[in-house]
Amino acid sequence: VSASRSDGRIRAGIVGGTGYTGAELLRLLAQHPAVDLVAITSRGVAGTPVDRLFPSLRGRVGLTFVEPSAAHFERCDVVFFATPHGVAMSQARELLAAGVRIIDLAADFRMRDAAEFERWYKLPHSCPDLLSEAVYGLPETAREAIGRARIIAMPGCYPTSVLLGLLPLARLERDSHGRAGVVDWDGIVADCKSGVSGAGRKAELELLAAEVSDNFRAYGLAGHRHQPEIEQQLRAATGRSVQITFVPHLVPMVRGIHSTLYVRLESASGQDLQQLYERCYRDEPFVDVMPAGSCPDTRSVRGSNVARIAVHQPSRNRAIVLVVEDNLMKGAAGQAVQAMNIAFGQPEVQGLTQMALLP
Amino acid sequence: VSASRSDGRIRAGIVGGTGYTGAELLRLLAQHPAVDLVAITSRGVAGTPVDRLFPSLRGRVGLTFVEPSAAHFERCDVVFFATPHGVAMSQARELLAAGVRIIDLAADFRMRDAAEFERWYKLPHSCPDLLSEAVYGLPETAREAIGRARIIAMPGCYPTSVLLGLLPLARLERDSHGRAGVVDWDGIVADCKSGVSGAGRKAELELLAAEVSDNFRAYGLAGHRHQPEIEQQLRAATGRSVQITFVPHLVPMVRGIHSTLYVRLESASGQDLQQLYERCYRDEPFVDVMPAGSCPDTRSVRGSNVARIAVHQPSRNRAIVLVVEDNLMKGAAGQAVQAMNIAFGQPEVQGLTQMALLP
Amino acid sequence: VSASRSDGRIRAGIVGGTGYTGAELLRLLAQHPAVDLVAITSRGVAGTPVDRLFPSLRGRVGLTFVEPSAAHFERCDVVFFATPHGVAMSQARELLAAGVRIIDLAADFRMRDAAEFERWYKLPHSCPDLLSEAVYGLPETAREAIGRARIIAMPGCYPTSVLLGLLPLARLERDSHGRAGVVDWDGIVADCKSGVSGAGRKAELELLAAEVSDNFRAYGLAGHRHQPEIEQQLRAATGRSVQITFVPHLVPMVRGIHSTLYVRLESASGQDLQQLYERCYRDEPFVDVMPAGSCPDTRSVRGSNVARIAVHQPSRNRAIVLVVEDNLMKGAAGQAVQAMNIAFGQPEVQGLTQMALLP
Amino acid sequence: VSASRSDGRIRAGIVGGTGYTGAELLRLLAQHPAVDLVAITSRGVAGTPVDRLFPSLRGRVGLTFVEPSAAHFERCDVVFFATPHGVAMSQARELLAAGVRIIDLAADFRMRDAAEFERWYKLPHSCPDLLSEAVYGLPETAREAIGRARIIAMPGCYPTSVLLGLLPLARLERDSHGRAGVVDWDGIVADCKSGVSGAGRKAELELLAAEVSDNFRAYGLAGHRHQPEIEQQLRAATGRSVQITFVPHLVPMVRGIHSTLYVRLESASGQDLQQLYERCYRDEPFVDVMPAGSCPDTRSVRGSNVARIAVHQPSRNRAIVLVVEDNLMKGAAGQAVQAMNIAFGQPEVQGLTQMALLP
Repeated sequence: VSASRSDGRIRAGIVGGTGYTGAELLRLLAQHPAVDLVAITSRGVAGTPVDRLFPSLRGRVGLTFVEPSAAHFERCDVVFFATPHGVAMSQARELLAAGVRIIDLAADFRMRDAAEFERWYKLPHSCPDLLSEAVYGLPETAREAIGRARIIAMPGCYPTSVLLGLLPLARLERDSHGRAGVVDWDGIVADCKSGVSGAGRKAELELLAAEVSDNFRAYGLAGHRHQPEIEQQLRAATGRSVQITFVPHLVPMVRGIHSTLYVRLESASGQDLQQLYERCYRDEPFVDVMPAGSCPDTRSVRGSNVARIAVHQPSRNRAIVLVVEDNLMKGAAGQAVQAMNIAFGQPEVQGLTQMALLP
Repeated sequence: VSASRSDGRIRAGIVGGTGYTGAELLRLLAQHPAVDLVAITSRGVAGTPVDRLFPSLRGRVGLTFVEPSAAHFERCDVVFFATPHGVAMSQARELLAAGVRIIDLAADFRMRDAAEFERWYKLPHSCPDLLSEAVYGLPETAREAIGRARIIAMPGCYPTSVLLGLLPLARLERDSHGRAGVVDWDGIVADCKSGVSGAGRKAELELLAAEVSDNFRAYGLAGHRHQPEIEQQLRAATGRSVQITFVPHLVPMVRGIHSTLYVRLESASGQDLQQLYERCYRDEPFVDVMPAGSCPDTRSVRGSNVARIAVHQPSRNRAIVLVVEDNLMKGAAGQAVQAMNIAFGQPEVQGLTQMALLP
Repeated sequence: VSASRSDGRIRAGIVGGTGYTGAELLRLLAQHPAVDLVAITSRGVAGTPVDRLFPSLRGRVGLTFVEPSAAHFERCDVVFFATPHGVAMSQARELLAAGVRIIDLAADFRMRDAAEFERWYKLPHSCPDLLSEAVYGLPETAREAIGRARIIAMPGCYPTSVLLGLLPLARLERDSHGRAGVVDWDGIVADCKSGVSGAGRKAELELLAAEVSDNFRAYGLAGHRHQPEIEQQLRAATGRSVQITFVPHLVPMVRGIHSTLYVRLESASGQDLQQLYERCYRDEPFVDVMPAGSCPDTRSVRGSNVARIAVHQPSRNRAIVLVVEDNLMKGAAGQAVQAMNIAFGQPEVQGLTQMALLP
Repeated sequence: VSASRSDGRIRAGIVGGTGYTGAELLRLLAQHPAVDLVAITSRGVAGTPVDRLFPSLRGRVGLTFVEPSAAHFERCDVVFFATPHGVAMSQARELLAAGVRIIDLAADFRMRDAAEFERWYKLPHSCPDLLSEAVYGLPETAREAIGRARIIAMPGCYPTSVLLGLLPLARLERDSHGRAGVVDWDGIVADCKSGVSGAGRKAELELLAAEVSDNFRAYGLAGHRHQPEIEQQLRAATGRSVQITFVPHLVPMVRGIHSTLYVRLESASGQDLQQLYERCYRDEPFVDVMPAGSCPDTRSVRGSNVARIAVHQPSRNRAIVLVVEDNLMKGAAGQAVQAMNIAFGQPEVQGLTQMALLP
């Protein structure tokens, strides 16, 4: 099942292409050498040419938004959901039946547990039986499963950065087989900062330029949906109880996530963290471990699918991990295309070699 | 009529205080030594304390938004309308009957001609008979009339900057009594740039931070409502036909308007423009003519009621005038308080001496 | 000694007024009803009118920058140092001898211990004997001492926000007299974010708009000078060993600091933190404890001397404290004027009632 | 001479690669399928790996900056000068002698007339005899000449946008053979706005983020070097006298130029301007004429080599042309690579198909 149906090309559809994630998917898929973009849906603007909404795509994307009913996604090899939560699960069964793979950029298939999903997203889950089949699409942890998956649940933007930042420690923990313990997994602090495109293209007062510009604030202190997602993945990776203190902040910029991760090291194992991180990500095409002492900036990944990581150890029992990613690329659309490449047996970096725009 | 009703204090009400102009009025009136803020209305958030919407006012404004019906504005000496167009005219007659003065920051009373208003604002005018009574509240041109007015129509943000920039030339023109002609009044180009707070506090996609930031564009090319307002005032000031080419642009900043005015000088009168401007504004408390050769920046007036002007003459028959103002201050709320001071016989600068925030 | 020399007015001088802190001091002192601004020095631009450098001060500040030798600060009641580190200590003795009080906005007198100063600032301290006399000028902890001080060492911008955020817990700790312990003082994480004006007005590549805009990064991971300052003050306040993990970040905005403080509560004392904070700051004119559940934004204090604090307790043994301040006001010049008011027996809020500019 | 020396690949060198134009050239050439990047020089940081200065290039550019003497540019087919003015002319003769083509992104070879160059750039020209040979590298006007040129003088960022915006009118003028006259070429107003990367990567106070952010201002009123360049090209294109009023402004954004061009139409020729522009640019790969009524925004070309143009005709005898470009791409490095492609007989769009980053 790892190739497209016929001629080696991947026929792709997009549900809900009027948001920023949709626009970024369009940018990537329009340039992807192995993809034919077949249809894109939007209830709100059906009939509008895509390049009228996004003039940056003029001359590059000839599609017009269509009503969902007119999309005929059964022709596709893969359908991306760049929709609010709850849409993908409502269409999943039908698409799977038609042999179409699903890559969901929303949260419908991220949680293992339907009850957990319903608690955080205030929605009943319409196909809980499919949850166990869905693969959490972080290539760095699930490359093989992605290759076989029918449903790929793309990680949230914050979780991607936090998980990539903690993965080397999680593996060290797992490999320690419950001996002394490497990290205090109940004491992780993830202080995360995101540009405003992460909030989506929604007409809300608090996202106005006059509200966001020259301003900085935290939000989601009462509980952010990405927290259980991160904890679930870290529990799976470490085999331990994990409780994370996660505080997201809104930065007056467009793209970019910067996660500052504070870790208490339980044992003085003498582990060289720099080495650990470099070794862990040596073969990863989209994770860049910076030289010791670095402070990566978000613009160094703006528009690219790379996450850059720096690890610091200010004292024997403290580690600070800095992670930057472009929330629309490695944090969303880029990683989704990476997963698609894996799922269809394409070179993983295909269509994803854009270099960051600096300055 | 130029004093408050009784004790020398001015009882003020605000209609529609949830926008940026309303917030700025609150900031100014709360600090004004002669004003008692009596009531503020909002249909949408009646019952909400003002400082919950605007935490910057915590400890300084104790009011709660009320329904219009509960405002009892008849107790007031003056009511400010910081509303969408069309609200002030619907309440004007009743307030005037109660002896309340009206300061309208919207456009209801800006045009002399009801038909012109209706053409540009797509609204029937509900009290055209009051138009001739209303005073266009630019203190630099109408100080005395403001002192006697029952209805003060505050100028738009762009018109304030354009008119202040051209007023010295308009007066020169008027004083030339139709001789040779000073300026080609059909050839004025006003290339204006505004920060995003000028568009108001409205939940619209195109005002989102992710749309506006790191971006620049023109708008309103099909005709902007401030154009007939500018032309009407210039015609009145010069006694000539005036046709202006006016293009507004949106700048990725919060506050500030920068108008670049291109003028063709008809006659080589040898007039020293720097001197002309300095003389014209010598006694104005809120217009600052910069030294020759200057380029004022918008931040030099951020949060203050001052407009700064520089005049350049690149060649014998060309002048370029640069004007900066804070669109919420001299361009709206600040100028409205200035008009109130005049109307109630207070010192004109009272409550308006805030210095610009730089940087 | 708590009044000015003669007529009730305070004659003030400024050393080094060409930076952002200097400009802010000028803005405040020019509007202060009890202050006469006597002289301002700058080696680099001596002879230049102050308002040529800062057009926002046109019409409000008539001074010209002078060489240090021409300032005749012995005429002053107080001299503010808005200079690089090392300048204040070189002039302190002479000014004190002339009966002039010193308010230093740099770090010369912040550390109790000359060796500690020299280690972090790489400068020999030229008057270590004065260190014990100097008062750390945080009004909320040292109001009375400030009133008597000849040398006031103004806190750094980050330390002000971190200390105000932890002070209620520190007092609780101190009052617990070493019983169980309230907070894990070795485990505090201070994740701080600052606008770029905090870095000063220096021609450095990394502070260019094209480097900073639409970008976010951490810095100072190798050790920031504000860390020992914070630890010194917290040790003094708690009587305990304190080790803080402090990571500053650069936000693409001009003004504002947001400190996110992560605290491990040692004992489940059942203490209501919201109540604790409100009680602690009940009488403080410039510290605003927000309602439970709030997330203060930096713009709510932009241009004002207020710090706003929100305290959250996500679980029984975790607290998160959010603090915002304007780094140039409560974090520097505003707090310095507050200290001056105290030192000279003036009302503490005099000249400091500016309301925040929002938006 | 239109191919590379041997194997069909183009060996390229860069002089002065530490600025933003240099960084953008690196981004483009590193991804260009036909280019081998041979050497890059910098006096200031020789010995530093390129990706230490620009972490966005990590894993993509393996070069280290070298001293000019160590570059051995004689091995190259082409050398790009991304330097201050005056460098290219000092090395031109030697490189030409070695058979190396020169693409200069500075101004050394832009003016036809050495005296004009010296007047505006305050530098004696060291090889005036080469001026007549140099080709002004705007592909839309000089494609064939570029193909044969040994020295290509890349247009300035502002001139590119202004010239592309006026070229259709200039051609109409030229084709009218001196009859009535199409446009008042002495009355063109070019009100141009640029992001701050256009000012280069220089440690100057006025380019600091705290100076530029949330601020807007004009500059260069006393005469900007791009004005004679624009006039020279328009004179050549129209065969008429041309005098332009050109005012550049600084926008608080990183990339992008927006030129608003005000044109007086002399004759009411009935010419449909929309049609004229569409026809003129029909076959141009990097000029996009927007639909009638459009207002292009700068972000629609951010990171791409496209210029987008909209033409408006508010009245019978007025035209307004809006042009956007990325100042580092079509305004500098992108256009330079486009010229290289032409010069070496490569497909013109090769390596230049990046789509704009939106948002």
